[in-house]
Amino acid sequence: MTAGRHFLQIPGPSNVPDRILRAIDFPTMDHRGPAFAEVGQKALEGMRGIFRTKGRVVIYPSSGTGAWEAALVNTLSPGDRVLMYETGHFAWLWSRLAERLGLRPETIVGDWRRGADPDAIEERLRADADHSIKAVCVVHNETSTGAVSPIAEVRRALDAAGHPALLMVDTISSLGSVDYRHDEWGVDVGISGSQKGLMLPPGLSFNAISDKAWQAARDARLPKAYWSWEEMEEPNSKGYFPYTPATNLLYGLNEAIDMLAEEGLENVFARHARHGAAARASVEAWGLEVLCARPEDRSPVLTAVLMPEGHSADAFRATTLANYDMSLGNGLSKVADRVFRIGHLGDFNDLMLCGTLAGVEMGLRDAGVPYRAGGLAAAMDELGATRQGQAPGAEAARGRKAGAR
Amino acid sequence: MTAGRHFLQIPGPSNVPDRILRAIDFPTMDHRGPAFAEVGQKALEGMRGIFRTKGRVVIYPSSGTGAWEAALVNTLSPGDRVLMYETGHFAWLWSRLAERLGLRPETIVGDWRRGADPDAIEERLRADADHSIKAVCVVHNETSTGAVSPIAEVRRALDAAGHPALLMVDTISSLGSVDYRHDEWGVDVGISGSQKGLMLPPGLSFNAISDKAWQAARDARLPKAYWSWEEMEEPNSKGYFPYTPATNLLYGLNEAIDMLAEEGLENVFARHARHGAAARASVEAWGLEVLCARPEDRSPVLTAVLMPEGHSADAFRATTLANYDMSLGNGLSKVADRVFRIGHLGDFNDLMLCGTLAGVEMGLRDAGVPYRAGGLAAAMDELGATRQGQAPGAEAARGRKAGAR
Amino acid sequence: MTAGRHFLQIPGPSNVPDRILRAIDFPTMDHRGPAFAEVGQKALEGMRGIFRTKGRVVIYPSSGTGAWEAALVNTLSPGDRVLMYETGHFAWLWSRLAERLGLRPETIVGDWRRGADPDAIEERLRADADHSIKAVCVVHNETSTGAVSPIAEVRRALDAAGHPALLMVDTISSLGSVDYRHDEWGVDVGISGSQKGLMLPPGLSFNAISDKAWQAARDARLPKAYWSWEEMEEPNSKGYFPYTPATNLLYGLNEAIDMLAEEGLENVFARHARHGAAARASVEAWGLEVLCARPEDRSPVLTAVLMPEGHSADAFRATTLANYDMSLGNGLSKVADRVFRIGHLGDFNDLMLCGTLAGVEMGLRDAGVPYRAGGLAAAMDELGATRQGQAPGAEAARGRKAGAR
Amino acid sequence: MTAGRHFLQIPGPSNVPDRILRAIDFPTMDHRGPAFAEVGQKALEGMRGIFRTKGRVVIYPSSGTGAWEAALVNTLSPGDRVLMYETGHFAWLWSRLAERLGLRPETIVGDWRRGADPDAIEERLRADADHSIKAVCVVHNETSTGAVSPIAEVRRALDAAGHPALLMVDTISSLGSVDYRHDEWGVDVGISGSQKGLMLPPGLSFNAISDKAWQAARDARLPKAYWSWEEMEEPNSKGYFPYTPATNLLYGLNEAIDMLAEEGLENVFARHARHGAAARASVEAWGLEVLCARPEDRSPVLTAVLMPEGHSADAFRATTLANYDMSLGNGLSKVADRVFRIGHLGDFNDLMLCGTLAGVEMGLRDAGVPYRAGGLAAAMDELGATRQGQAPGAEAARGRKAGAR
Repeated sequence: MTAGRHFLQIPGPSNVPDRILRAIDFPTMDHRGPAFAEVGQKALEGMRGIFRTKGRVVIYPSSGTGAWEAALVNTLSPGDRVLMYETGHFAWLWSRLAERLGLRPETIVGDWRRGADPDAIEERLRADADHSIKAVCVVHNETSTGAVSPIAEVRRALDAAGHPALLMVDTISSLGSVDYRHDEWGVDVGISGSQKGLMLPPGLSFNAISDKAWQAARDARLPKAYWSWEEMEEPNSKGYFPYTPATNLLYGLNEAIDMLAEEGLENVFARHARHGAAARASVEAWGLEVLCARPEDRSPVLTAVLMPEGHSADAFRATTLANYDMSLGNGLSKVADRVFRIGHLGDFNDLMLCGTLAGVEMGLRDAGVPYRAGGLAAAMDELGATRQGQAPGAEAARGRKAGAR
Repeated sequence: MTAGRHFLQIPGPSNVPDRILRAIDFPTMDHRGPAFAEVGQKALEGMRGIFRTKGRVVIYPSSGTGAWEAALVNTLSPGDRVLMYETGHFAWLWSRLAERLGLRPETIVGDWRRGADPDAIEERLRADADHSIKAVCVVHNETSTGAVSPIAEVRRALDAAGHPALLMVDTISSLGSVDYRHDEWGVDVGISGSQKGLMLPPGLSFNAISDKAWQAARDARLPKAYWSWEEMEEPNSKGYFPYTPATNLLYGLNEAIDMLAEEGLENVFARHARHGAAARASVEAWGLEVLCARPEDRSPVLTAVLMPEGHSADAFRATTLANYDMSLGNGLSKVADRVFRIGHLGDFNDLMLCGTLAGVEMGLRDAGVPYRAGGLAAAMDELGATRQGQAPGAEAARGRKAGAR
Repeated sequence: MTAGRHFLQIPGPSNVPDRILRAIDFPTMDHRGPAFAEVGQKALEGMRGIFRTKGRVVIYPSSGTGAWEAALVNTLSPGDRVLMYETGHFAWLWSRLAERLGLRPETIVGDWRRGADPDAIEERLRADADHSIKAVCVVHNETSTGAVSPIAEVRRALDAAGHPALLMVDTISSLGSVDYRHDEWGVDVGISGSQKGLMLPPGLSFNAISDKAWQAARDARLPKAYWSWEEMEEPNSKGYFPYTPATNLLYGLNEAIDMLAEEGLENVFARHARHGAAARASVEAWGLEVLCARPEDRSPVLTAVLMPEGHSADAFRATTLANYDMSLGNGLSKVADRVFRIGHLGDFNDLMLCGTLAGVEMGLRDAGVPYRAGGLAAAMDELGATRQGQAPGAEAARGRKAGAR
Repeated sequence: MTAGRHFLQIPGPSNVPDRILRAIDFPTMDHRGPAFAEVGQKALEGMRGIFRTKGRVVIYPSSGTGAWEAALVNTLSPGDRVLMYETGHFAWLWSRLAERLGLRPETIVGDWRRGADPDAIEERLRADADHSIKAVCVVHNETSTGAVSPIAEVRRALDAAGHPALLMVDTISSLGSVDYRHDEWGVDVGISGSQKGLMLPPGLSFNAISDKAWQAARDARLPKAYWSWEEMEEPNSKGYFPYTPATNLLYGLNEAIDMLAEEGLENVFARHARHGAAARASVEAWGLEVLCARPEDRSPVLTAVLMPEGHSADAFRATTLANYDMSLGNGLSKVADRVFRIGHLGDFNDLMLCGTLAGVEMGLRDAGVPYRAGGLAAAMDELGATRQGQAPGAEAARGRKAGAR
């Protein structure tokens, strides 16, 4: 028995709001009946809005990994070359998945401390004179490192190189948290999942598909069935799915669509940006280092923090879990035990962030990690400096008798 | 606004009990943390019990269609021949899926009015002298027709033919409703889903895997990543998954595992059998025909009913939905608009069945379909005849003064 | 472990719809904060609509018994004479409560087989020349017998007698199920509870108060604190309460208010009337007797059924509970073990009623109670005869080829 | 749309844990059926354990105010004198309620900055030579001021004075949060409510009753019906209630009973004490004043803070609500707008407290209230100093290479 609410501060799954959990907690309905069509149409249309695309969106009952696979098997053929930018662990996992599917991924290995470098991509594409590269794959927000890649610039790199490769972007941990513009940025396949900015439990994934990608699917020869876009088309047009969808998660998705619309996507993005800045203010004040070294790439969604040399990030995380009932993200592969990750995404607010950062600060203390106190205070300053608008009570609180004390 | 509870009497998704919905309605947890390991281990171990196997079970965040795909891509290579018995629409869909994946399905086309014929399978396998057939695929409970295939006899057919093909069985709509014995029956891959006898919303699927199938997976060359059994092995051994699992549905699964254990699988099977018999008693009394013509193959899970010639099953279903807020299953492909299907599975009891059959009987009347009244009365007789044990109140109810009236 | 859904067919608490349970399942809020004011105002305003009054409504965190007490202590003084019509057990309980509070109830004892007799009331009031009777108390829908009293006629009786007594009406099991018009009928205090037609769990109760009753409260000298209307006035005017309200039940109440508005009160009343008629058709067909002997008084909310002589109603109810997981209402005091009561109120529909009546019919059989089969069939006929409008699928179901079979 | 979780930091209703909300979200059952008896018995027995009494406990569907009334009307007669110690607003409300019921409360008016003074009580009782005082009423934890009264010492005061008055103690905001020992301390009537330490939504209240109080009830002549203990006795003995109980809240109560048992009451009390100390460390560091001036009386449940002269507590609270989505308690009557109250009770943990205190600190800043920074840091120090046991990860975190940095 642990009293109070667990702080789930991994960079996804994020904290699922009660409205969404409660929406999921309604009886499953007939997925072939007329009432379902409204559910399906709202979900598909709503996701188009969130992806900012007028193109097609498909929804899978699967984790985000499935949507990676779907993007590839629908558009590519055995042995196709794909250019993948390794911003971190998840980009690497995606390239490994491509390989398992019979593609030939070629990887630009970054240093895991920044987003993708458009110049490096452009250079590589210019060298690909015969256009043997069929797709360029980039992770928008690399969840393992907390670095955001400049997708619009990657698009410009492809254009500058005059290269016809498809542009595929993993938005799994950015969609609904970081500004993403599928059509405006010329992305061909956007890949996402339910358990991050969309605030749902895991179990749904998404592809947003440009016309160019849709055309490419006609000639793609990788085998596919479950992931087939083509099979989705006719049933989706009426709000249905070719096989039993994850109905109750779709209830939750529709609630999420409403919630994001109520807050306004721009406000959602600003909120995440503000929390990211506050989290980094803490890290700096503690005298620790943010893994992402390039300031403009730092993520609004999570902050990966380098442990001081000689200290175990995993032991520190075990301490915060044991002492403060808070889950933090671990370092993955190359940075295992070297970083911990603070998730500050989804259904999140200032006081949840303060509780989170307090847990980190106390965890550092309890685990004997060297740090300077005052990280949380720095975050509170940052939150104060960036609060929008005037505190409605501020004038009033100075109150009835001016000049007191 | 429709008052009262919807009757979801399609043959799956079945009615999800409150205990399971409420279990799903708990906050998502860290799928890499120590608390999750208990969730994962319980789910995996519990599913082994339900499949009645000491072998491996894997759990996917996907619909059952995904588990069909998983069974094939993990064990087979491009161009492999598979023998598939077409008991109905779902068996046909599975063979179509096999084809899309680059396999060569060979189909024994049944008449859709009985389960698979073991003799036909044996005959075909005997003719396959060079063992070019790598797998035999059978649907245990054909959801489109309401026919159960005799899996133990199919096993005996393979053995009699001395054929080494893998035996793959779709238990999607039978697991947790109809007796299924993975190990005893020598099934190599069992395929299932969450939304039928397991009483969950859709979104989870399963493979139960024999050692032989596990060995076959080593040489299988169909591309696979999301569905890879191999990737599951190491994380599953500790209760984890290689990618983000559908955590909240796993909460529900563990509740389902508890509920099935509390009732006892044998009692669950007996309950379904009894309700199937009662439903068929109604159909017979109405003067209508059960689609499944072979009595011993009739399903305890659903009853597909042939409409009288010249009457539309879909129009009848629209009537029951409009007038009685009840969803019935439609006829699929070959029997579209010719049959309707009554689901009587999952979290279900006598009075829910009576309400269901009353809705069918009144729907027949309202839709102008010729029928004889008294179907529901016949079901009530059947339910009375098959109730186990003595009514505890029976003696007492005759009560205080004997011989009255 | 009992599979499937329990049939809660007592005459209240009624089956709580998922929408209401889920609304209750939201975090408790600050009952003094601005967000609460909206909750409170909606509840108070919504209840005025349901009571059909432009006067005051107060809401208590209590069972309906508390609202009985509140009606009396706010308007009367020690030793005051009240005229109470004993339609059944609950009317008797109310008079007993009045006595305990120091009032002098005078009871017109009915035969428990009809509603209140306005003529008897008029006669008694005419005899009360000095107007020593301060209040007339009548139960609108007597939950113990299934008899509805003609409130408008009772009002006319008071008027005809020229008697100034307050008219108090218990609408606990009628509000939201049976037409009730507080203002039009000139009721002074209406008393209700949450767990019947309002479809909520128990825990809220209500007083609807005429101006005359409000004036009477000024001079009333029975001690009161928790129940004091006066204390409610100022906080209620802004949507607040004088002490901590049952916040989460108020969430549910507001959902109920929405649901009743969506269906439309007139439709809700018609639905209940239709189900009452169908239930009585069953009873008649079984050859059993409805307790309420006066046809025009028979309740749309519940049907109390007389057991054949020599048979125990409680043993029969034990049988239906054990065999069919259905709760029926028991006979109370004078009719204990002599009647059972079928609740058909609240969030209820045709197939739930059919399931219920099937359970009664099978229970009669199992318990060895003499009855004629065919009760459920009679209900189905009644439901067919009274269904509103044309079945949308009826024409279509006769379908493609006319004249078949 | 406000993102993230509301911080409900009023001193009750406290944050309701998901386990309890979800327990409440189950279908209402027959409150006269056999399954209910188990619910009722568990609730009654469990509450005896929490009150630490072997005597009787009764449960009302009402707010805590109702339980105040119940304590008085069951034990006293019109015109009885009761000695009430005014520790704050709620003690005053209780005396006002006594007066409305026809009792003659005599009040020892404290300064609202400490708990009750046992010496003052003893002195007054000694002066009451003819024992005209029938009851002594004390609030254990005064929710309006954050002061705890020493009940064991009050008991000793009665004994020292040799006075036979009943001792009645309001434990509404202490039960389940602060050590309370009904039998050991010789309390005659304990009064409590569901929405504080019991972690439920409001709607249930309690009386714990000594044998002496039970005897007194026989001669008590205040009118009572709803609140009558006597009516409870027979049905309670079997787990039932004399009128419809608030069934779903009882489901929640039973979950709360389990949760408190799982954590252990001693651990629950220690947790609250530790959080109280940490909250006060913040207040002191801010340079503000805790309302409760007597250190040993300061509440583990809430901290009332005096605003600097000339600043409005309500305007400050409006600021924290607007800027940080946190509800704080207001000052009541005598200290209206002069204090704000921080609730730190119920289902609560270290990081929730840190988030809360961060909200207060930022609110002070935003509202222009003079304060010294560092309050939250002081709380974090306090939490560190008082954490029980060794952080499990502490040694490990210093980790692999000792002496680094």
